[in-house]
Amino acid sequence: MQARIVAEATENTHVLALEPGDDTLEVLRDYAREQGFTAARFTGLGAFSRVVLGYFDWQRKEYERIELDEQVEVLSLVGDVALDDDGAFSLHPHVVVGRRDGSAWGGHLLEAVVRPILEVVLVESPACLQRHRDSETGLALLRP
Amino acid sequence: MQARIVAEATENTHVLALEPGDDTLEVLRDYAREQGFTAARFTGLGAFSRVVLGYFDWQRKEYERIELDEQVEVLSLVGDVALDDDGAFSLHPHVVVGRRDGSAWGGHLLEAVVRPILEVVLVESPACLQRHRDSETGLALLRP
Amino acid sequence: MQARIVAEATENTHVLALEPGDDTLEVLRDYAREQGFTAARFTGLGAFSRVVLGYFDWQRKEYERIELDEQVEVLSLVGDVALDDDGAFSLHPHVVVGRRDGSAWGGHLLEAVVRPILEVVLVESPACLQRHRDSETGLALLRP
Repeated sequence: MQARIVAEATENTHVLALEPGDDTLEVLRDYAREQGFTAARFTGLGAFSRVVLGYFDWQRKEYERIELDEQVEVLSLVGDVALDDDGAFSLHPHVVVGRRDGSAWGGHLLEAVVRPILEVVLVESPACLQRHRDSETGLALLRP
Repeated sequence: MQARIVAEATENTHVLALEPGDDTLEVLRDYAREQGFTAARFTGLGAFSRVVLGYFDWQRKEYERIELDEQVEVLSLVGDVALDDDGAFSLHPHVVVGRRDGSAWGGHLLEAVVRPILEVVLVESPACLQRHRDSETGLALLRP
Repeated sequence: MQARIVAEATENTHVLALEPGDDTLEVLRDYAREQGFTAARFTGLGAFSRVVLGYFDWQRKEYERIELDEQVEVLSLVGDVALDDDGAFSLHPHVVVGRRDGSAWGGHLLEAVVRPILEVVLVESPACLQRHRDSETGLALLRP
């Protein structure tokens, strides 16, 4: 386990309201870039008109895509922002969604279109978090 | 997308423990009113003896009710507090619950009775968040 | 309902990256002890190679064990840290996981082995939270 205190001073809290048709990952990535985040965490709730969930297949070392082409409630969006090996903004978002019958589904968030809103609370820390490419999995893993 | 920094100064963190028989939404709404929150976010976990989940039907523009009249674990409660057009406290809570077989269910939290506890961490921001009624959906949507 | 403000001053934010093979609860408990936490909350995401979920049976007053002996995505980990009646560190963790087909499962986190990573953001409050054994359920319940 690696651990690090990323804030002893004040953190900034941002509230975002994504709008109908917004591409969730694109909007969050653009915001992180504009604001120059070097470490942040976020939670969110709302609804999507369409979502693609990812399950990381440990044998193939690839994400399987689970497509839900329907209106779903976003029950929880949990994630963080760090910088990758190239200094680019790297988002790690996991999501749980609820379907019409109330059943919950989820995975790594690969794609999602907002409808009518996604409320995201983003807490920005005065630190720099890095993600490094892991040779075994090919994934960029957080190394605080 | 709309965005806003709601805290650059210190935020207050409140820890709440709801008790057996508590009506979750009523208790949270009363607490928000007593404390005079104008912007807050919360997460929670615990258990309910009964819960009604909502799925927003995009055609009918109404919530479908999914009633679970059984003891469930509260796996995540994610939400925020803002003021609506009339200046009243407006809670937006989404929940994931776990049933006896471990399957997860969830939706917009419409009703829930606590048993034996619901632990809620509520972070209050020194800002004012507003929700405005959206003419298309009839929903009160966050407009930071 | 009991409530308490646990932070009006600055809180410390810790970012932890658990590693392959880590026993999640042991690592979190050890970290809480080393750091001397008296009140904290956490959220997390990542993946497990194996997890045991708990559902509290209200009749028997015991946890039923739901074992998932397979790779799962950790969609949300929500919990808090307090001190129990003996002054020991008491973790209350609830988890939602996603299986290969995208279905979500969850419960009280009884056991979990990390693979390849579990990212946990832990916010430490300058207060002391206590959990007391409840005579009806036998559970240690938060009493802020």
